[in-house]
Amino acid sequence: MPHINLSNEYPGIRSLFVFRPETAAPLNALVQTLLHDPHPTLSAGERELIATYVSALNTCKYCCTIHGAIAKHQLGGDGELVKQVVADPDAAPISDKLKALLKIAAKVQKGGKNVTPEDIEAARNQGATDIEIHDTVLIAAAFCMFNRYVDGLATWQPDNDELYDKMGEQRAREGYLTAPFKVDRTEEMVD
Amino acid sequence: MPHINLSNEYPGIRSLFVFRPETAAPLNALVQTLLHDPHPTLSAGERELIATYVSALNTCKYCCTIHGAIAKHQLGGDGELVKQVVADPDAAPISDKLKALLKIAAKVQKGGKNVTPEDIEAARNQGATDIEIHDTVLIAAAFCMFNRYVDGLATWQPDNDELYDKMGEQRAREGYLTAPFKVDRTEEMVD
Repeated sequence: MPHINLSNEYPGIRSLFVFRPETAAPLNALVQTLLHDPHPTLSAGERELIATYVSALNTCKYCCTIHGAIAKHQLGGDGELVKQVVADPDAAPISDKLKALLKIAAKVQKGGKNVTPEDIEAARNQGATDIEIHDTVLIAAAFCMFNRYVDGLATWQPDNDELYDKMGEQRAREGYLTAPFKVDRTEEMVD
Repeated sequence: MPHINLSNEYPGIRSLFVFRPETAAPLNALVQTLLHDPHPTLSAGERELIATYVSALNTCKYCCTIHGAIAKHQLGGDGELVKQVVADPDAAPISDKLKALLKIAAKVQKGGKNVTPEDIEAARNQGATDIEIHDTVLIAAAFCMFNRYVDGLATWQPDNDELYDKMGEQRAREGYLTAPFKVDRTEEMVD
């Protein structure tokens, strides 16, 4: 049960956005810029994979599942690739540059000071640019916020893969600034 | 030395805001809403103390020092109180409600799932409202992001208390949306 009264029909962070629209606006603007808006070099799918991986490291079920679903739809429907990245990025069929960026993201998840010049050098050796390194660090840091926000208030996190897949398809197509669809909690409620 | 080329005259997160204005806009809007805008019940000083305390737990020198300075100016110049809260909130001369909220913030800093119904109940017993609990969790989560962002890119963090005090006085007065003043790095550079 959520720690505060979130009597609305939305799961996870969406219920918090309805509760506090004042903070929802900049949070949605941040994730839209980081993950959905056009990027000089990183695809939306690659950026969603970074968000999904960090959310998995933080064991945040809602964020990991929804961003995994968004990543899948951004990657042309390749859900297997998302699972492989979450399980073991080094063994996944992704670029060496993305592997090096995911290593930096994992360091950030533990704490900013864990990122070493050697981690940065390894990413640069695979062609990573300053903007890519910056955005990787900020995506990882932002999901250390979003994951704590969602779990720290014990939001409702449905246990229904099909529902996450539908929500993920919507976000991949529309971005983060459109209205979410309501979920019928009589069917979906699990907590 | 910063991990990416931040060739500008601003310390800490301000150098990152100049590097990437696209993400600076929502980040500044978020901190303005959380810490500076009018709040139903929590003063700006109380909210800055939560931000300062979490930044201390994350050992982020820049964020802890600048928000400590902002807190001091929001609290009428009481720098001693800020030091006491950072050192040991339970022993500091603050309200029992704020002590209970700082306990929740410390749990969030470790990870969202650490917040228990008992932590929430303890805060409610001291009069904490849903909005206060929500904002405490989000401030703590947001500083887990800001701290990782600032340290994960190894930004320049001056070692000059007077400089932080001046910057803190400006932010307490103006909020987060005005231009920062440039720092003469020939005098202030420490890394």
